[in-house]
Amino acid sequence: MTSEAITVLGLGNLGRALAETFLRHGHPTTVWNRSAAKASGLAATVATTAAEAVAASDLVVVALLDHQAAQEVLRDVDVRGRALVNVTSGTPEEAREMARWAEENGAEYLHGAVYAVPRTIGTAESSINYSGSSAVHERWQKQLALLGKVTFLGADAGLASGYDVAILSGMYGLIGGFLHGTAVARAAGINATELMPMMWSWLTDMHPALITFAEEIDSGNYAAGESSLAMNQTGLAMLIRATEAQGVPFAALGELKALVDRQVADGHGEESLARAVESFSGVASQRLAG
Amino acid sequence: MTSEAITVLGLGNLGRALAETFLRHGHPTTVWNRSAAKASGLAATVATTAAEAVAASDLVVVALLDHQAAQEVLRDVDVRGRALVNVTSGTPEEAREMARWAEENGAEYLHGAVYAVPRTIGTAESSINYSGSSAVHERWQKQLALLGKVTFLGADAGLASGYDVAILSGMYGLIGGFLHGTAVARAAGINATELMPMMWSWLTDMHPALITFAEEIDSGNYAAGESSLAMNQTGLAMLIRATEAQGVPFAALGELKALVDRQVADGHGEESLARAVESFSGVASQRLAG
Repeated sequence: MTSEAITVLGLGNLGRALAETFLRHGHPTTVWNRSAAKASGLAATVATTAAEAVAASDLVVVALLDHQAAQEVLRDVDVRGRALVNVTSGTPEEAREMARWAEENGAEYLHGAVYAVPRTIGTAESSINYSGSSAVHERWQKQLALLGKVTFLGADAGLASGYDVAILSGMYGLIGGFLHGTAVARAAGINATELMPMMWSWLTDMHPALITFAEEIDSGNYAAGESSLAMNQTGLAMLIRATEAQGVPFAALGELKALVDRQVADGHGEESLARAVESFSGVASQRLAG
Repeated sequence: MTSEAITVLGLGNLGRALAETFLRHGHPTTVWNRSAAKASGLAATVATTAAEAVAASDLVVVALLDHQAAQEVLRDVDVRGRALVNVTSGTPEEAREMARWAEENGAEYLHGAVYAVPRTIGTAESSINYSGSSAVHERWQKQLALLGKVTFLGADAGLASGYDVAILSGMYGLIGGFLHGTAVARAAGINATELMPMMWSWLTDMHPALITFAEEIDSGNYAAGESSLAMNQTGLAMLIRATEAQGVPFAALGELKALVDRQVADGHGEESLARAVESFSGVASQRLAG
């Protein structure tokens, strides 16, 4: 049985790891990169143009720098009949725009958000969320599974990026808090490794509270807040003062407090901390629209 | 057997919950609050002055608004022979200052950091970290255990607050990231409750990476970074751009990126993201001192 031909556009760290994985599993792989030198050492067919690379395979995986680069590379390429799987990072709206373009040009479109570092591509540590064409997801399931655990989120091509941007926002919040917390600890003579078990236990214990917050946010009903905005306003003020006194200020705490302050000023002090989300522009209007 | 007399100074939400717990367990309890009206409904002896309250019991639990309030209340009180357990929020240095004052005035001092909301005081959901006098911790272990799970961190009275401020920094980072992430998700048409399982799984999967970060931070050796500063600088720039494009900017991400940028500008782009902690003022000098 002949393995299916696959094309990879873009040979940055991610694209190269994708191509290596397909090659390792015996797929004839065609690659293209703006600078062909990036293909050195790969046992792939190196196309001289993106059009030639796309013509070579039914499945075309796009891993370029950003949406603009993807648009520029694909603009004049004949993609009719191709399954385009785009794992280029970007916004939900960019993914939807690319999906519309693909449809208009006779291709099927699946967008992917990669949860892996290049080293873990093709291992059980890697997972990729997809959204868009369920036909592409089904037809190419086996090949996509070579890259990492596959999760299909739905037909809206923007969903994978939507989840991605949201999850990364959460992740960088945690990382910022972790880094600041360890800096604060060290200023008090406590090592990061000493702090870690207690901090992690406290953070994971927040799971039920965050589930409640999520329910409050979806319903817009913040009445029954055990952890009130007013209580957290005081807590944040104390924390900001304490970390400044320790010589380790972090303006991110002030940004969070500003979200809380706005809701308290609007008379919601006794409601749930989760209501701070309403201070982000767009949340209230999105609920009205949704 | 007669239960030991206990005094509680301060009848805010926390102080009142502490006094109620001692009373429920049969301890003759004396309370004092600047405004005596706060004692209404408590089956406690209400002292008219803080000095009178302190004279009434060997164990004095202090739960006032802040360090300044605690200083003002205790300043002219005879605390000789007393075990002072101070659960007033504050900085490590404030706790150490209070410990010095107590020692100079013939009292033993234990500082506590409370992990509970008033409702959970006296239940298994509550825990309190203590540091300072191990003699007080041992002598009053049974009474302190009535309030919640007891953890003794060491003889430095500042440790409990040090851990507290560090853990709260981590917690508010997570909360800020969670709130921002849900706002971003809702802007993309994804409900917070839909997002929650995937976001939580991703956040808890970060545990090994954060343990490695903690080791790198303690050693000051960031050479082997799998998640490099440069990679995260690109990721943060993408995320900031994406969340702005979705109409949900959050300046906290820019604050985190500024920490990363500083280390990249200093030539450390290929080192671990954990090195961003060195951008906080005081961390490098603390390592030199420690």
